[in-house]
Amino acid sequence: MSEVAEVMIEAGDPVMETDFAREMVKQMRAIDTYGTYDDWSQEKILSPFVLTKEMKREIPVVGDPDEIVLARVKAFYNAIASLIEKECKLMAVPMMHISHEGFGRVIITVGKLLVLDKTLRDVHRFGFPSLSKMKDEADKLLSVALEIIGKHSDVAGM
Amino acid sequence: MSEVAEVMIEAGDPVMETDFAREMVKQMRAIDTYGTYDDWSQEKILSPFVLTKEMKREIPVVGDPDEIVLARVKAFYNAIASLIEKECKLMAVPMMHISHEGFGRVIITVGKLLVLDKTLRDVHRFGFPSLSKMKDEADKLLSVALEIIGKHSDVAGM
Repeated sequence: MSEVAEVMIEAGDPVMETDFAREMVKQMRAIDTYGTYDDWSQEKILSPFVLTKEMKREIPVVGDPDEIVLARVKAFYNAIASLIEKECKLMAVPMMHISHEGFGRVIITVGKLLVLDKTLRDVHRFGFPSLSKMKDEADKLLSVALEIIGKHSDVAGM
Repeated sequence: MSEVAEVMIEAGDPVMETDFAREMVKQMRAIDTYGTYDDWSQEKILSPFVLTKEMKREIPVVGDPDEIVLARVKAFYNAIASLIEKECKLMAVPMMHISHEGFGRVIITVGKLLVLDKTLRDVHRFGFPSLSKMKDEADKLLSVALEIIGKHSDVAGM
């Protein structure tokens, strides 16, 4: 399922210098038990997150997500939780539930506050048109989360 | 794992007349796809939730929870979510994540508010000393949840 062609991310892509990309690389290295990524470039580690329209078209519409895709989805939301934590200095806890058919829900909580709540669909085709689109999505989720925390800091601190 | 002897709950146990017990029976019937429980008494349907100390001792300390136990844990927290919903007239959504080793977390959210957040351990030995102890636990969780909702109704209504 995840063995489609990969997009090569160019070395020197400015997105790679952002906090988000650094955190994503860190998350991917954290789950790399066997050290497969040890001699990979950061660009190569993040390239499976990029799925162009053409690549998506080659993946069946219905499919069960495999462990590798699930780990990627987790890494993405773990990175967002980690960035939330850095910004607000409170623990952000992600929790994901995905059925074997690739449908589910992911949440991030800070204290008693739900700062991210997303329904997941078609997880077997998880990916973004480009690395900068992935960063945009993360930035959006991050800013919404931080806004809620700012408004309800009492609940976030519970 | 779940095929230990069952405690017979006496017919006419006053606990069976409570909202909680009724909701539990409803939740158990909801997951009974094949109608196995159709001619069972309410007492018989709830009896697997009762695990006396002696019965617990017979279950190995370490074990993987099977589907039947997981369904029971879900039914318990679904019932609590349903009672929260009845009281506060807002949707309460449960979400459970349990590893195959029987460790995990269950949450219930109302709007953007986390009204229940519990770490689960030894799920393969899920059960209560008696039906009234189970109701006590549910009442406790319910009242804590309703208190949080009362204090932060703005977040619960988000």
